[in-house]
Amino acid sequence: MTVGIIGLGLIGGSMAKDIRRNSFADKIIGYNRSKENCEKALEIGLIDEIATFEQVCSESDLIILGVPVNAIQKVLPKVLDSISDKAVVTDAGSTKELLIKEVENHKNRKRYVPSHPMSGTENSGPTSALDNLFKDKVAIICNKEESDKDAVDLVVRFYEMLGSRIIYMNARDHDEHVGYVSHLTHVISYALANAVLDKEKSTSTIFDLAAGGFASTSRLAKSSADMWVPIFEQNTQNILPILDVYMDKLKEFKTHLENNDMDKLYEFISEANKIRKVLKS
Amino acid sequence: MTVGIIGLGLIGGSMAKDIRRNSFADKIIGYNRSKENCEKALEIGLIDEIATFEQVCSESDLIILGVPVNAIQKVLPKVLDSISDKAVVTDAGSTKELLIKEVENHKNRKRYVPSHPMSGTENSGPTSALDNLFKDKVAIICNKEESDKDAVDLVVRFYEMLGSRIIYMNARDHDEHVGYVSHLTHVISYALANAVLDKEKSTSTIFDLAAGGFASTSRLAKSSADMWVPIFEQNTQNILPILDVYMDKLKEFKTHLENNDMDKLYEFISEANKIRKVLKS
Repeated sequence: MTVGIIGLGLIGGSMAKDIRRNSFADKIIGYNRSKENCEKALEIGLIDEIATFEQVCSESDLIILGVPVNAIQKVLPKVLDSISDKAVVTDAGSTKELLIKEVENHKNRKRYVPSHPMSGTENSGPTSALDNLFKDKVAIICNKEESDKDAVDLVVRFYEMLGSRIIYMNARDHDEHVGYVSHLTHVISYALANAVLDKEKSTSTIFDLAAGGFASTSRLAKSSADMWVPIFEQNTQNILPILDVYMDKLKEFKTHLENNDMDKLYEFISEANKIRKVLKS
Repeated sequence: MTVGIIGLGLIGGSMAKDIRRNSFADKIIGYNRSKENCEKALEIGLIDEIATFEQVCSESDLIILGVPVNAIQKVLPKVLDSISDKAVVTDAGSTKELLIKEVENHKNRKRYVPSHPMSGTENSGPTSALDNLFKDKVAIICNKEESDKDAVDLVVRFYEMLGSRIIYMNARDHDEHVGYVSHLTHVISYALANAVLDKEKSTSTIFDLAAGGFASTSRLAKSSADMWVPIFEQNTQNILPILDVYMDKLKEFKTHLENNDMDKLYEFISEANKIRKVLKS
């Protein structure tokens, strides 16, 4: 089997590493808009060959779109236009509803299996690729009944090879779900980073930002604008109400503090502590 | 030297472990309001002897207060009342201004060296104690000119033994600094946990909360109300304006999203990305 990867960054590159190590494909070909990234990916052995966009589409049995969601929206119809009959297409986008809508009437829609591996780091580019990035992580497959069974089976085998735990979900639930679990946490982190960076400009105090839980909360603020602006754009309708819920919680906390109501604050924190039960680690 | 620890939880217990391993004291005695925690601390070898509050004060050369900041406020004057002439007192409280004010006119004020080791986990109790919890972390010593030189020297030696990097700061700067770096990040995390837990009640979607950056941002929400309510209470005057700055950043993000202004959103995120430069890891 030939696997073709469009987008040779953290996600596509990490998938390539596991594909090779686990001999999932006979050949891995790859395309990236940036020629430099193509050459780097070849040099560090992520791919066997640099291909053109058209070659990836016509020569691969499985095509993976590892590009930002605005790029997926743009290239997905073109990919489906030019794949061979038996080929399967999947993506790794953090939004699903709009992408699916984009190709809902495409003649090859059934060869597309929308998926979202919920893993990553704050780094990007081919050199940020990691072994086992998806191991023991969740991979979500959306609207599987709209895809051919053999196509879903191949994508399932692919994520099983990566060591992921597969969850099926409809695209609407997916987008709201990740709105909370992933997109909101990124908004929070970006806002925190900006609040602290603003403050730092106006103070002479030496900030030691690695301490006090700051590092773990602000880690996500390193994530690239190229990847995240399109996610926020595509999931605006879910993120806006979620952001309101979150801001109401902050206001609630602030009101208790302003009123010096420590009983209510205690209750607020005790409620939050219940996250222990649902968080595995 | 005899070290006496009041409060045998995560902080006091972890200090005890390093004191023993590095032979910093000949004897470690400990007191905890909970008899059960005293016995557990003795059983797992954190301390050599369970002592009364009075014994810890009168028999120790170095007394460490590892209790929540409201308890520090209460016991610090009593400890200073009953220590021996050469004894030194330090604490591990996350606030400093109010604690120092509490004993500003105490005859033994100079024997107290206010400190704050910036390390911890979301767990509590003697069994949560860890080796090397303070290694390579910052320890802040406040208003050192208000303490006897030999007292500061002993506390410096103590934190050096723990492997901490010592920073000197005045209490006012400290409280604002940790307001941003530690207290705000906890507020953020508690609010996130509550937003998601609320949502979960009203949805049938299976949330996988370990994914998508949620785990690292919500980890702090596990931290106990007993420890954190007093911190928020004592640092209210710093936290309220900081919370406003943060909420303004969130509003800014929301406005860009509502206006579908992706250029502004790109700018917002690119600004936040600068946190890379100041974050070590």
